[in-house]
Amino acid sequence: MSPPELHVIGVPGLPEVRAGDCLGDLIAEAIRRAAIQIQTKDIIVVSQKIVSKAEGRMVRLDSIRPSPLASDWAKAHGKDPRLVEVVLSQARRVVRMDRGVLIVETYQGFVCANGGVDVSNTQPGTVTLLPTDPDASAEEIRRSLEQVFPLKLAVIVSDTFGRPWREGLVNVALGVAGLNPLRDYRGGTDSWGQPLTATVIALADELAAAAELVMGKTRGIPVTLIRGVDYSETKGPGRQMIRPAERDLFR
Amino acid sequence: MSPPELHVIGVPGLPEVRAGDCLGDLIAEAIRRAAIQIQTKDIIVVSQKIVSKAEGRMVRLDSIRPSPLASDWAKAHGKDPRLVEVVLSQARRVVRMDRGVLIVETYQGFVCANGGVDVSNTQPGTVTLLPTDPDASAEEIRRSLEQVFPLKLAVIVSDTFGRPWREGLVNVALGVAGLNPLRDYRGGTDSWGQPLTATVIALADELAAAAELVMGKTRGIPVTLIRGVDYSETKGPGRQMIRPAERDLFR
Repeated sequence: MSPPELHVIGVPGLPEVRAGDCLGDLIAEAIRRAAIQIQTKDIIVVSQKIVSKAEGRMVRLDSIRPSPLASDWAKAHGKDPRLVEVVLSQARRVVRMDRGVLIVETYQGFVCANGGVDVSNTQPGTVTLLPTDPDASAEEIRRSLEQVFPLKLAVIVSDTFGRPWREGLVNVALGVAGLNPLRDYRGGTDSWGQPLTATVIALADELAAAAELVMGKTRGIPVTLIRGVDYSETKGPGRQMIRPAERDLFR
Repeated sequence: MSPPELHVIGVPGLPEVRAGDCLGDLIAEAIRRAAIQIQTKDIIVVSQKIVSKAEGRMVRLDSIRPSPLASDWAKAHGKDPRLVEVVLSQARRVVRMDRGVLIVETYQGFVCANGGVDVSNTQPGTVTLLPTDPDASAEEIRRSLEQVFPLKLAVIVSDTFGRPWREGLVNVALGVAGLNPLRDYRGGTDSWGQPLTATVIALADELAAAAELVMGKTRGIPVTLIRGVDYSETKGPGRQMIRPAERDLFR
């Protein structure tokens, strides 16, 4: 038996992405230039940052007038009130606003610090917002890529989120196309023949995490290609990965 | 520039692990038999399940006398009262006991469903407990491996945990040896020269997630080897990944 093997390949050489760019074309071009032999069922993981840029999801902080809530809280915690205002504008619910940490549920349904609003790796004075519909973003990239390469591909749009109880951020899947983001072992049996009752693996999140290991934060590699993972092509949207409120014990 | 690349290689052929086995020796033997060319700075990720088995962390359910609390709650939710009792025995605090879900903080400090007590992939009628000190488990495996292979290696002991707000389980690092589990970008700058203020990546958790993609649940591959990740050898224990209570907003 030859050992099963997974490859995560960084796609170097992407240009600085601008609003209106076709990300699928830029990625295809970079894959070709790097002489990466793309194959069917390869999974392309794309950093949210460049998706947001391509979709024009940038805000200039000097265009923002902070509310009293944003101003007061920012002042109490040494934050930029305009940034706090932008975060609140992305929220449909504030989950925690405590000890200088602002965790919201975004209107897309993600629970994350600062609503995914990011000040790093963007032009000074501007911030990026999460894509409006990350599943649609992933699907658009997948379609462009499949026009260039006549292959079955999957695309994940990823971002780094914090977690309760554990230190550090991990990369997770915001949007998914061409891949079932959850791998369901229920109904299967373990090696003793006993039923596996509660095992659903967050496949797309683990793929995003694996991709981050190659992307890094300062390396300027916002796209990776993952090969060697068996996945189902069911077009389950990434949205499925958001736990419904009625099943969530930590609202 | 040649693309940066990460490999995750499954180590097949491990025997059924028994209490008292030297896991490092079994893994070294399996790596040799699979003709995997191990290299310096390779990272070995080992499933908690086989670590617990080697350390004799198994409990026979018929040896357990459930408390009234365990019996009543089990009855109300269709659970095995003996299993609930074992879970409570691993807890230093109950985090949620709601809608049939029992989330505890284990005495090791992990917040997880059922205290990491697992009924799958173990002899019927027995359950496995988490290792008493997963960092020590990782260190012991690392030492045995380094005695066989004269190389600098890192070892991660991993398990799959659920998360609030998101569906599905992801593999995380319970114990770590030979590798700094957190990658700290603070003090660095982004590609615009702006300081990266709040970016600490949970490197060991992302490595565990990447490993799970190859391990699977039913494939019988409890060990993987990861190559191509640059990491610091600082012997920070995995324990560092547990967020201190005073900084945790979700206790």
